[in-house]
Amino acid sequence: MKAEIITMVTMKAEIITIGDEILLGQVIDTNSAWLGQLLDSLNIAVHQIVSISDNKDAILHALTEAAKRSDLILVTGGLGPTKDDVTKEAIASFFQTTLVRDEEVLRHVKSIFEKFGNGRAMPDMNYGQADVLACCDVLFNDVGTAPGMWIERDGKCFAFLPGVPFEMKFLMEKRVVPRLADYRAKVSIYHAHVVTMGIGESYLADLIGDIESELPAHIHLAYLPKLGTVRLRLTAMGHDEADVKKETDGFARQIAVRVEDYLVAEKDVTIEEAVVERFTKDNIRLAVAESCTGGLLAGSITAVPGASAMFDCGIVAYHNRIKQQVLGVDEEVLASFGAVSEQTVIQMAEGVKSLGGADYGIATSGIAGPSGGTPDKPVGTVWIAVSGPHETVTQLFHFRNDRQVNIERSMAQALNMLWKLYKKDNSK
Amino acid sequence: MKAEIITMVTMKAEIITIGDEILLGQVIDTNSAWLGQLLDSLNIAVHQIVSISDNKDAILHALTEAAKRSDLILVTGGLGPTKDDVTKEAIASFFQTTLVRDEEVLRHVKSIFEKFGNGRAMPDMNYGQADVLACCDVLFNDVGTAPGMWIERDGKCFAFLPGVPFEMKFLMEKRVVPRLADYRAKVSIYHAHVVTMGIGESYLADLIGDIESELPAHIHLAYLPKLGTVRLRLTAMGHDEADVKKETDGFARQIAVRVEDYLVAEKDVTIEEAVVERFTKDNIRLAVAESCTGGLLAGSITAVPGASAMFDCGIVAYHNRIKQQVLGVDEEVLASFGAVSEQTVIQMAEGVKSLGGADYGIATSGIAGPSGGTPDKPVGTVWIAVSGPHETVTQLFHFRNDRQVNIERSMAQALNMLWKLYKKDNSK
Repeated sequence: MKAEIITMVTMKAEIITIGDEILLGQVIDTNSAWLGQLLDSLNIAVHQIVSISDNKDAILHALTEAAKRSDLILVTGGLGPTKDDVTKEAIASFFQTTLVRDEEVLRHVKSIFEKFGNGRAMPDMNYGQADVLACCDVLFNDVGTAPGMWIERDGKCFAFLPGVPFEMKFLMEKRVVPRLADYRAKVSIYHAHVVTMGIGESYLADLIGDIESELPAHIHLAYLPKLGTVRLRLTAMGHDEADVKKETDGFARQIAVRVEDYLVAEKDVTIEEAVVERFTKDNIRLAVAESCTGGLLAGSITAVPGASAMFDCGIVAYHNRIKQQVLGVDEEVLASFGAVSEQTVIQMAEGVKSLGGADYGIATSGIAGPSGGTPDKPVGTVWIAVSGPHETVTQLFHFRNDRQVNIERSMAQALNMLWKLYKKDNSK
Repeated sequence: MKAEIITMVTMKAEIITIGDEILLGQVIDTNSAWLGQLLDSLNIAVHQIVSISDNKDAILHALTEAAKRSDLILVTGGLGPTKDDVTKEAIASFFQTTLVRDEEVLRHVKSIFEKFGNGRAMPDMNYGQADVLACCDVLFNDVGTAPGMWIERDGKCFAFLPGVPFEMKFLMEKRVVPRLADYRAKVSIYHAHVVTMGIGESYLADLIGDIESELPAHIHLAYLPKLGTVRLRLTAMGHDEADVKKETDGFARQIAVRVEDYLVAEKDVTIEEAVVERFTKDNIRLAVAESCTGGLLAGSITAVPGASAMFDCGIVAYHNRIKQQVLGVDEEVLASFGAVSEQTVIQMAEGVKSLGGADYGIATSGIAGPSGGTPDKPVGTVWIAVSGPHETVTQLFHFRNDRQVNIERSMAQALNMLWKLYKKDNSK
């Protein structure tokens, strides 16, 4: 019932993404997720995301439908200079207007080509980038050549933005969000999160079933499982922001206490963010030795802002010589047990820990596939070790997926093992 | 005009993704991209992707609209065991049918809990996972607890699939694709690709403008720019697969010859895939030393199947001690010029190259942000070096984005520099 209430009282938003490359699966639509988060933080409910073709009829149809059901329509993509972009023509037709050349935009487009063109003249087609709808407010694009456009018509707001992520983000933050202030609903939507690891969705639901049953109708609980982590999201709505927050946080706290053994955080963070925050706070340093995860485990941690305070080093030891020379794995261990073995990951984890003088070391070694499997060690066989101040723990996994999923699951399990050992070490 | 022709003669498909987490931007919809690629390979045109809320009315509305305009409707998500999932109830109402418990599915769900439940009883809610629409063919899910469902109604085909990516992929490949054989159009859609690097979209369009002008109406050219790479995609349609292929490949070849200086590949590959393929073929080995890219550069290369044949090692040298100890960077260089300097990246690239006995070494060092910037070296300052058999080249970049984008741009530029140097070394 929650969604019906929201759609009646707050601004309803819809995102339209234009581009054959999305329908063909050549590009993953990350813009919509970013926009969804931003609008949610502004209490604006996104009720639909639509991806359509670079095609005039498809664009006209999508705009017509969106105008019927939404108050705010954000359109991304289709504003590049080349001939495959028919968006402007289609939207001019939708608004029954014409395109006019904007002189300020043209000066800006020219200046970009002067700066980055290495002396080459601006191609003729880029003049067209300065063409905008006669009825629009230009959303001036400081960071690219495609201007955005803002149009209000029959009480609905339309924003047309380029598909290049950082240009789209710039225009949203600097040009669109300020314009939304007048329209934003006074109703508050509030989210509280509890993140767990190491317990399945159904067991978790059973564990907190009685708390869930007591939730009032205006608080909704969602389960978001992903690779060993389950995020619980409580969504509440009400007129008094402080009241809504207090009530929802109360239920979140009850849940957090109940799931303490599996608790990662009482806010919406990834396990990587939780590790970086906790290790930084406790002044603990981490080092990582990777074989099958190939640098992505280190990369997932260092991608978190501030990771340099707790991340020591990472060694991607694809070849045995690096395992021996840099990590100090015994030649004999490699010869007797192989690179994918408990003995090897123990020495890798302990080796990388002492190499960097870190407090914890993680090591992964496995056969991600699609080739490299043997009858003894088929594709998906992965050994993981985590070495802490008091002990080194290991675990063997048999994943049965493709390379990418095997790598992702290895990363998730490695972080799971690290978190568990760290919790244990700190409960003593 | 291309899209209109396709929509008349081939099966029109639509993807519906159910889940508040997508609208809130907490999860990026990667399932749709995977489905788009798969359907394209089957000559089935996806003309729309829609993401909607976990809400009965939204599901009913989306199914009603989809049934009007599409022949094949693929629905993912909303089949989990917890209370937030209302999909089955909504679709039973759409098809005016009831839910029935499938005994074979129930046995399977129970067996999974016996295997992985560590002795805990199956939660009651999981019984509901064995409920399916009375009018459906069950798509038996060997790899998870949520069964898929297949329904044909009024000449339209509907498939309902769980949102967990590997379960969805399993059901598509094993259960849905075989059922599509009867429906697939006899018309061929063919794509040819030319991938370039180091030239902007507009200059590229200028360079090949005359070839583009000569394309017949049934061949469509699209530009897909991303971080220094521009992929050109020629899409053609016709009744004779061999003819369509021959004609389109001919134009792709003309374009490839024209853009030779910027050419990465004459097929749809990423720059990482091109590097892995080329280095493997030429028996060349690569090593990587990373600071600001934190393991993601190594990870992007090792994520390519077969990378172990050409990837030697990666060192994520966040701390100076690792730069000195493992990579052999001089203490004096670090003290005089700092970690983010031309002198340091040269020693890092040369150090990692000789550490692994590789042919090429890449090094990145920069300030990804959001903190760590200084007036001299603001956030976004990145030095990159590539060391080959004959020389070491360096370049300084000033990115002005957030941490994630600065890291992505550094990775793209490092691979760009590697590719250019390798091409130069092999043109001598």
